[in-house]
Amino acid sequence: MKAKRIFQIVAAVTIMGGNITGTASVLESEEAFSRLLPIPQKVMVGEGRFRIEKSFAVKVSGQPDDRLYGAASRFLRRLDQRTGLFLPQDYVEKGETLESVGLEISVKRPGEVKLGEDETYFLSVEAGIVRLSAETDLGAMHGLETLLQLLSADEQGYYFPVSRIEDSPRFPWRGLMIDSARHFMPLDLIKRNLDGMAAVKMNVMHWHLTEDQGFRAEIKSFPKLHEMGSDGMYYTQDEMREIVAYAADRGIRVYPEFDVPGHATAWLVGHPELASLPGPYEIERGWGIFDPTLDPTKERVYEVLEAVFTEMAAIFPDEYFHIGGDENEGHHWDQAEHIQAFMKERGIADNHELQSFFNKRLLTILEKLDKKMVGWDEILQPTMPTNIMIHSWRGRDSMEAAAKQGYASILSNGYYIDLMQPASEHYLVDPLPSDIDLDEEERARVYGGEATMWSEHVTLETVDSRIWPRTAAIAERLWSDASIRDVEDMYRRLDTIALQLEELGLTHIKNRDMMMRRLAGGYDIEALRVLADVVEPLKIYRRNADLSYRSFSPYTLLPDVAVADAKDARRFRALVDAYLETGHAADKAAVESMLNVWRTNHASFARLADRSPALREALPLSEALRDLATLGLAAMGGESPDAAPVLERAREPVAKVELQVVDGVERLLEK
Amino acid sequence: MKAKRIFQIVAAVTIMGGNITGTASVLESEEAFSRLLPIPQKVMVGEGRFRIEKSFAVKVSGQPDDRLYGAASRFLRRLDQRTGLFLPQDYVEKGETLESVGLEISVKRPGEVKLGEDETYFLSVEAGIVRLSAETDLGAMHGLETLLQLLSADEQGYYFPVSRIEDSPRFPWRGLMIDSARHFMPLDLIKRNLDGMAAVKMNVMHWHLTEDQGFRAEIKSFPKLHEMGSDGMYYTQDEMREIVAYAADRGIRVYPEFDVPGHATAWLVGHPELASLPGPYEIERGWGIFDPTLDPTKERVYEVLEAVFTEMAAIFPDEYFHIGGDENEGHHWDQAEHIQAFMKERGIADNHELQSFFNKRLLTILEKLDKKMVGWDEILQPTMPTNIMIHSWRGRDSMEAAAKQGYASILSNGYYIDLMQPASEHYLVDPLPSDIDLDEEERARVYGGEATMWSEHVTLETVDSRIWPRTAAIAERLWSDASIRDVEDMYRRLDTIALQLEELGLTHIKNRDMMMRRLAGGYDIEALRVLADVVEPLKIYRRNADLSYRSFSPYTLLPDVAVADAKDARRFRALVDAYLETGHAADKAAVESMLNVWRTNHASFARLADRSPALREALPLSEALRDLATLGLAAMGGESPDAAPVLERAREPVAKVELQVVDGVERLLEK
Repeated sequence: MKAKRIFQIVAAVTIMGGNITGTASVLESEEAFSRLLPIPQKVMVGEGRFRIEKSFAVKVSGQPDDRLYGAASRFLRRLDQRTGLFLPQDYVEKGETLESVGLEISVKRPGEVKLGEDETYFLSVEAGIVRLSAETDLGAMHGLETLLQLLSADEQGYYFPVSRIEDSPRFPWRGLMIDSARHFMPLDLIKRNLDGMAAVKMNVMHWHLTEDQGFRAEIKSFPKLHEMGSDGMYYTQDEMREIVAYAADRGIRVYPEFDVPGHATAWLVGHPELASLPGPYEIERGWGIFDPTLDPTKERVYEVLEAVFTEMAAIFPDEYFHIGGDENEGHHWDQAEHIQAFMKERGIADNHELQSFFNKRLLTILEKLDKKMVGWDEILQPTMPTNIMIHSWRGRDSMEAAAKQGYASILSNGYYIDLMQPASEHYLVDPLPSDIDLDEEERARVYGGEATMWSEHVTLETVDSRIWPRTAAIAERLWSDASIRDVEDMYRRLDTIALQLEELGLTHIKNRDMMMRRLAGGYDIEALRVLADVVEPLKIYRRNADLSYRSFSPYTLLPDVAVADAKDARRFRALVDAYLETGHAADKAAVESMLNVWRTNHASFARLADRSPALREALPLSEALRDLATLGLAAMGGESPDAAPVLERAREPVAKVELQVVDGVERLLEK
Repeated sequence: MKAKRIFQIVAAVTIMGGNITGTASVLESEEAFSRLLPIPQKVMVGEGRFRIEKSFAVKVSGQPDDRLYGAASRFLRRLDQRTGLFLPQDYVEKGETLESVGLEISVKRPGEVKLGEDETYFLSVEAGIVRLSAETDLGAMHGLETLLQLLSADEQGYYFPVSRIEDSPRFPWRGLMIDSARHFMPLDLIKRNLDGMAAVKMNVMHWHLTEDQGFRAEIKSFPKLHEMGSDGMYYTQDEMREIVAYAADRGIRVYPEFDVPGHATAWLVGHPELASLPGPYEIERGWGIFDPTLDPTKERVYEVLEAVFTEMAAIFPDEYFHIGGDENEGHHWDQAEHIQAFMKERGIADNHELQSFFNKRLLTILEKLDKKMVGWDEILQPTMPTNIMIHSWRGRDSMEAAAKQGYASILSNGYYIDLMQPASEHYLVDPLPSDIDLDEEERARVYGGEATMWSEHVTLETVDSRIWPRTAAIAERLWSDASIRDVEDMYRRLDTIALQLEELGLTHIKNRDMMMRRLAGGYDIEALRVLADVVEPLKIYRRNADLSYRSFSPYTLLPDVAVADAKDARRFRALVDAYLETGHAADKAAVESMLNVWRTNHASFARLADRSPALREALPLSEALRDLATLGLAAMGGESPDAAPVLERAREPVAKVELQVVDGVERLLEK
C-alpha cells in the first residue's frame, strides 16, 4: 500500500533543482503532499521546512479585490485555531506595516467572479518565507486553501514543507447544486457549504429555488408566489443578496434555477391562473413527478415569468440563469382543450415543440436581461438557438450531442449525490473522458460539471453528510489532471479533507452521533454505531419506491444515519483484500476481529431496540449481520457451511438500508 | 441511589384517586416522571399508558394566538423524529377536521408575550386521549414541552404514562442573557438557543448588543455606530425583528441592552465626539474594563442615545430596556477638565452622582418611549426614582436593598455561567431564599433571574456548551418549587435534558468531538478525551489573569473542549463515595478501573502530542493525572506513598485547565 501511495504522488511531483534521487524519502517524510485535495497540476518538492512561529503574519500586495483581505484573515484564524499559536494579527489589512512577514501574497488585478476568470496560483514555500502569487485574488484564495492543506507538524512544532506549486483548474465550471425547494435549507447551512466548496476549489453554486414542494424566493411584484407557495420558508431578497455576496467573497458564482414549466405546483398555489388546468392547487407534500404545469398559451404566464426573472436578475449578477425545463410529461397539456387548440392553430406538432415554443419566449426575456439560458437536457430541441447551455442530467450522450451541435454544456449525470452512490462512482465520471468523440472546438464547449444535491431525502440535519465528503471527489475530478484516477488514494485523502471541512461548521460528521443518540433514546449508541457503519441507504431511486416518504417524514432513522460510503464496509473490503492476497496471520486476525464484533453485536443491539422502538425495524438487519459474520468466521476456520440462505438474507434491504459487507464475506467463502 | 431517587420524585407527586400504596411501583415502572425538568408544581400519577400510534394527531380549540399552531406542529415533528412513526399530520391548523385526535389542546385566550402573563397549564394523560388546557397559548406551549419529556417506551412501543400535571412558574422572569457584543453570535445560534430556552420553560432573552469590542445593532440614523464599530458583524434591523418574532413564537420576550456610559468604546470609533476625552478610538481587541466613556455633559450624546433608543424601541416591543451602567470607573471623567467644570457648576459631588445625572436623562428618553429602565446594580443611587429595575450582578445584598427601597429587581449574581462553575453552584442560588429578610410586598418585587452568558471566552463553536446544560439547572430554580434542591437528582436529569436539547440543533455535545478531532490533527482522539473528561477550564476570572486572550485568540484548545462539569470527574466522585461508604469489592473495582485508565493514558496522550503540537502544553497535566492515578492505586493497594508532591502538582493549573479528580484521590488516601 505504501509504495503505491508514494508512486501515486510522484506522478504529480518533481523535485526542485532536479535532485530526483531524494524523491521517495522526501515524500515519505513530507506526508503533506500526499494529503492535497484536489491534487495540483504541478508540485515541486524541495528540502527544508518553513517554521510557523507565533509572529507569523500575512502581507498582501498588488491590486486584489478587497475580498482577499477577508480571505487572508480567515486563513489566519483557521491556522491559529489548528495550531493554537495565538497569532497576533487580527485582520489582514490594506497597506499595513508589519514587523515580520510569514506569508506574502501578491496579486496583479481584482478577479471577476464570472465564468472563465483566471484562477491560477503559484505557491512557493521557502525555509524563510512563503510566497503566493496569482493573476487574480480568485487564484490566490485557492492557493490559501492549498497552503492550509500543507500544514504539518514535527517535534519542533508546525511547519509548511519547502515546495513550489503551480496550479490551475482543468474545467472552469466546478459546481454544486443545492435544492432549497424540496426541503428548505436555512441561510447558515448554505453559507457553511459555500465555505466547504471554497476549501476544495469549487466555484459555482447552482441554487434550485422552486419546485412542486416550494417556491423559495421572495418576489415583490407577485408576493403570492412565495407567501402561498412556501409554508413561510423562503429567502428574502436581502437574504439572497447576502448569499451572493458571501459566495463572491469566496470566489464562487451563484446562479438561480426557476424550474418551469413542470415542477411548478408551488407557483400555482397563489396563482392558479397560470396553470394549464383549473385549480385550486396545494403545495405538494409527496415526492415524484407531478402533472401541474404552467400554461404556455397564456400571456399572463410570460408576464409573471418576466417579473420573476427581472427581479432575480437584479439579485444574481451572474450571466447564467437556469430555467429547469425537465420532466414535463405534458399530461395537463394533453388534457387542456384550449392548449390543444392553440397547438393546432400554430402547427405545433407535439409537447416537445410546445415546450420549445415556451422556452423561446423565456429566451427572449432572458436576453433582454443579458442572461444566458441554462436548462436540463430536455430543452435541447432542434429549433433552439445555440446560445443556450445544456445541463446534462440524463446521460453523457446528450452532452456529447450538444457539444457537436454547438451548445455549451455542463455535466451532472454521474454526479447525483442524492442517489447515495459511493464516492468512487462519481470520482471516475469524467466530463471529457479520453475516448470521447469530440474535436478540440467541441471539447472546449464542455465547461465542467455540477454535483446535484436534490433534497427529497435530506433535511438540514443530514444534508451536509450527503454533500461531504463525496463532493470533494467530484471537485478533484473537475480541477485536477484527467490522469488522477486512483480510487484508493482518493479515499485516503477524502478521509483527511472530511476532518478539515468540519472546521468550517459543516455537520457531516458531528450530526451523525447526535442522530444516533436521539434514535437510541439516550442509551449508549455503540451497538447502533456498529450496525450503522456497515450499512448504506438504499441507492438510486429505491429508497422511496414504496412512496412511504413525504416532506415531513422523520428523516432521523437508520438510513439517515447511514452514509453512502459505509466506513467499516470500506475497511472490511480492504482487510479482506489484504488477507486474500497475503494470507498473513495478522491480516487474518484483523478480518476475524471485525467479524467477531459483528457476530456479538446483535445481542447488544437487540437490548437497545428493546428500549428504543424506533430501532426495532432494523432487528432483522442486525440478525443478518450476526449470521453473516458467523458464516465468515466458519469459512475462515475451514468449515463449509451452507452459505446461500444467509447470503441471500443479508442482501435483502431492511429498514431502507442494505448491508455492505456481504461481498466481502462471500469472497472469504470462495477462498 | 435508587431509593433516594424515588423518594425525591414522590415529594412532588401524588397518586390519582388516592391510591397511595402503588406509589413506589408506579414510579419505578414510569421513569418518565423522574426525568421532568423543570419539575412541575404538581404531578399526579395514574395507572395505564396512552399509546402513541401512527394515527396520532393534534387538535387545537379555543382562542389561542396563532403561534400555538406553529408550536403544535413543531411538537409533532419532534415526536415523529424521535419515534419514527411517520405521523401523517403535516401542520396543525385552525379549524381542521381530523379523523382521530390523540392530543387535544384547548386555550382560553391569546397570550401576551409580556412580564406576568399567565403561563399555567394542565396536562391530563388518559389511556385514550391526552388533554392539555391553559388560559393562554404560552402555558400550553410549556405543557407541550412537558409532554415531550414524558415520552416513554415499552415492549409495545411508545407511550405517555397516565397522569395529571398542574404547573405554573414560581418566578415570572426566567431569563438568559446572550452577549453578542464581545464575540458576535450569528442568527441561527440565537435561534437554536431560544428553542433551548423554550424547552426548559424560560421566557426572557436579554440581548447584550454593545460593548467596547463591538456595536452590533444597525442604527439607521447614525450608521457609523454599527458600520465602524462592528467589523461588519452586526444585526440588521430586519434580523433583530426576526429574532423578536422567533422568540415571541416560543413565548419568549426579548429586550436589548445598550450598555452606557462605560463599556462604550465601540460607539466612539465612528463617533469620537461622544467621548469624554478626544479620540480617535479603535474597536477594543482585549478583555477587561476600559476607560473610554460617553460624555454626560454633551447634548450630542443624548441626541444620539435618543435616536438609538427610539429606533430600538420600535424593534423590541418589550416594555423593558436595559441601559447597562456597570463598571464605569470614571477615569476619563476625572481627566476631562470640561467635565470637572460641569460637575462643579452643577454641584455634582462625585462620579456616582454624575452617572445618576446621566441615567436620569436616559430615563426621560425611555419614559417618552414607554419603556421601563433596567440597569446593573450601579444605577441604584439614592436619587433614582423607583420605577427603574435593578439587575443584580454584584451580590444578593444589593438585590435585597433594592427590594427594601421599593425597586423591582432580578438576580444574576450566582448565575454567571461564563465563570465555568459547576451546575450545582448555580442550582442552589435562590433569588428568594427562605431566610431572606423581606416582607411579602418586598418579596413580590423580586421578579426572578437571568443566566448571563458573557462572551469573552466563548465563540460560536463553544457557546452552546457553556450555556447548556447548566442553564437548565437555573431554569428549574426559577420555575420549580423552592423545596426542589436535590443536587444529585438535578445532575441525573440534566444528563437527560442535555441529550434532548440536541434535537433543537444545539451543539453543546457534538461540537466537542469535532474540536478534539481538530486539536488531535486528525489522529485518534481517545487519549485526549480521557484527559478532557477529568479537567475543567479555570474558573471565575482566573482564565485570563495573564491577559493572554483577545478577541481573535484560538478558542479551540483544551480549555475550550473542557466543560464546567467534567463528566468523568463527577462519575469518579460518585464511585469514590460509594466505595468509601460500602467498601464493596464491585465499588472498589469500579474506582480502580477509572484509575487504571488514567494511569495508562499518558503514554497514548504523549504519542498524540508528539504529532499534534497544539496539545503539548497539556503534557504536564497528563503526567500529573498519571501520577495521581498511580498514587490512588497504591493507596487502595494498602501502600502509604508520599502523596504531598503528587497532589500539589495535580492541583496546579496547566494549559488553562485544572484536574478535577484530586480531591477524590485524596479521600482514598485518607481512608
